Amino acid sequence: MIQPLTLNTPNTIEFGIGKIATLKDHLKSSRRIFFLVDGPIRDTVEPVLLKIESEGAAVQVSTEVVPEPPIESLENLLAPVKAFDPDTVVGIGGGSTMDLAKLVSVLFTGEQTTAEIIGIGNVKQRPVKLITAPTTSGTGSEVTPIAVLTDTAAQLKKGVVSPHLVPDVAIVDPELTMGMPPALTAATGMDAMTHCIEAYTNRYAHPVVDLIALEGIRLMAAHLERAVTDGTDAEARTAMALGSLYGGMCLGPVNTAAVHALAYPLGGTFKIPHGVSNSVLLPFVMHFNLPSCTARYAEVGRAMGLKNGGELNESLAKRCIGKIYNLSECCGIPGSLQDLKVPESAIPSMAESAMAVQRLLGNNPREVRTEDAVAIYTAAFHGSIG
Amino acid sequence: MIQPLTLNTPNTIEFGIGKIATLKDHLKSSRRIFFLVDGPIRDTVEPVLLKIESEGAAVQVSTEVVPEPPIESLENLLAPVKAFDPDTVVGIGGGSTMDLAKLVSVLFTGEQTTAEIIGIGNVKQRPVKLITAPTTSGTGSEVTPIAVLTDTAAQLKKGVVSPHLVPDVAIVDPELTMGMPPALTAATGMDAMTHCIEAYTNRYAHPVVDLIALEGIRLMAAHLERAVTDGTDAEARTAMALGSLYGGMCLGPVNTAAVHALAYPLGGTFKIPHGVSNSVLLPFVMHFNLPSCTARYAEVGRAMGLKNGGELNESLAKRCIGKIYNLSECCGIPGSLQDLKVPESAIPSMAESAMAVQRLLGNNPREVRTEDAVAIYTAAFHGSIG
Repeated sequence: MIQPLTLNTPNTIEFGIGKIATLKDHLKSSRRIFFLVDGPIRDTVEPVLLKIESEGAAVQVSTEVVPEPPIESLENLLAPVKAFDPDTVVGIGGGSTMDLAKLVSVLFTGEQTTAEIIGIGNVKQRPVKLITAPTTSGTGSEVTPIAVLTDTAAQLKKGVVSPHLVPDVAIVDPELTMGMPPALTAATGMDAMTHCIEAYTNRYAHPVVDLIALEGIRLMAAHLERAVTDGTDAEARTAMALGSLYGGMCLGPVNTAAVHALAYPLGGTFKIPHGVSNSVLLPFVMHFNLPSCTARYAEVGRAMGLKNGGELNESLAKRCIGKIYNLSECCGIPGSLQDLKVPESAIPSMAESAMAVQRLLGNNPREVRTEDAVAIYTAAFHGSIG
Repeated sequence: MIQPLTLNTPNTIEFGIGKIATLKDHLKSSRRIFFLVDGPIRDTVEPVLLKIESEGAAVQVSTEVVPEPPIESLENLLAPVKAFDPDTVVGIGGGSTMDLAKLVSVLFTGEQTTAEIIGIGNVKQRPVKLITAPTTSGTGSEVTPIAVLTDTAAQLKKGVVSPHLVPDVAIVDPELTMGMPPALTAATGMDAMTHCIEAYTNRYAHPVVDLIALEGIRLMAAHLERAVTDGTDAEARTAMALGSLYGGMCLGPVNTAAVHALAYPLGGTFKIPHGVSNSVLLPFVMHFNLPSCTARYAEVGRAMGLKNGGELNESLAKRCIGKIYNLSECCGIPGSLQDLKVPESAIPSMAESAMAVQRLLGNNPREVRTEDAVAIYTAAFHGSIG
């Protein structure tokens, strides 16, 4: 029996090479537009900004984006945006940029504080139009109801989840991702892969989400290495952009699980990029989860192209975990926390921090207790799977 | 290479048993609500209406829905709605009801006439919130940018296509479909099946649409007979509702093809219900299209559960067409135009009318000329496939 589900998605998703050209159409009725743009992409969007300004709209542009954005960097943005008083907010960049743009769009009027909206369902409204366009293929933030901040004091990442954070328009143009260097392509790609795998093997897995999660895995397993090797490979970039979009579509209705929960302290404390944290932890969490979702991991393996010559699911699932580990390695992502210079002595406090992320741990197919988190981090520290 | 695509969808899709209860949440900020409701469902939604009124919103309800709605029946609705001046329009019913509600929402202010908006992209704006909830599993209109009217003078159906017709919220509650009698279940179910098949085998087929089209076919092939046999089978009703929703999602980006084009005159001239027209024509159009999409029909056959013991695609595709014919027959739908009392002498003029629907014929995988349309109608008249 198919269970009830709520899907919140942008009214319009523009997908494909060249679609960034539609941005001006979606801004036709906007008079005051605030753009938050990743520095490196600024030159690419400059002609669009000039065109919009020449047609009489007021434009304010900021490139003040800090990766894994701390709460303070969000708050620094609010006053100038309030003074500008936009009717539209546009975020063009990676996950940090889009998350910040989403948060600015609901906070700039000052009616709610950042502290008030952290958590699930606490945003009251969004008074402006919101448009996002990703320049990486990983976050999926362009379509999700989620934005993540770093609480520097608590050394932990905190999530804001609300349907008001779902943009009106998402423009997913693979051409914008062509400038990504190989390491960023790899890390963000593995992040997207993690979204799909954690959604598909989620305690709250749903057939509507399974369909796109498996397709995302299929697309990305077939194209990630190509995109890393040759960043100008339009076919690979397009497949990765679609896989990442599918990953994002999974996050609203089902969301992620233990990989993301355990990754949060790595970002919060050691400033390790989100995609790298996820990628390093993914095979170790899968190994821990194996008894609880053997058949589903076997299916992930099939979607990744593993041939099944009549072997049992357990053996196929184990090969799937190995393939994930190898894919990450082939893409040049470090294979252990040790390689990332995370000290082994930090594991107990990271485990404690991760346990606070019950919002995501509750989705995990197998219950994670503190000692399990310690064991997973320890295995990931040494980079050796069971 | 994955080609560019624009997806226009409701911001919120509430799917599943019991979801109609969310209607009042989506009306929280509405003060004046116009409801267009299918007569038979009026009692079911009455408690919701009373609750909304008791909380201070003004409510106007109409059950003035004519199946395969003629332009006049739309125009009769406009004046009272203009006088009421709603901020929200809600359509609860079958395809005709939802289509009318969608058209009322963009026309009631009187800024555009019906004639002006017929065709693609002619609607200028929608000044009100729009919510749809289907009581059949067939049309998919709850999520599409399309509404269809009968031009009584021209004896032809005419389509209005615009992103402004995509509702803000679609509530797809299978419980609302439980009252459908077997014949309506069958006809609307085959309509939804036709949406998925014509999208999957479309000249403009796209991998994003293929994914949901095939899943829709899978779901509906496995559950249509069950839903027809036992209308209270919640599992079957839920699967059909999801299949129909997927069918609807295919219509915006890819849309239908020759089956729908050839069905239009059957509705326009002989008032044959849309789903029945499609169902009767589907196997005959598939037979005509066979040389142009053999592999895809074979894939449809696999999605319908046909086992492939190493046979060639052509043989599997032919069995697929047979299975479609049988499915329709098992569900009690007449097998020929003859059975529907359409006179053979009407075929030449129907073929001529169908040729006017180039908007859809252009999507067909094989070019349809007037003589082809005559041949397809003739085969369908006799009910014998090739």
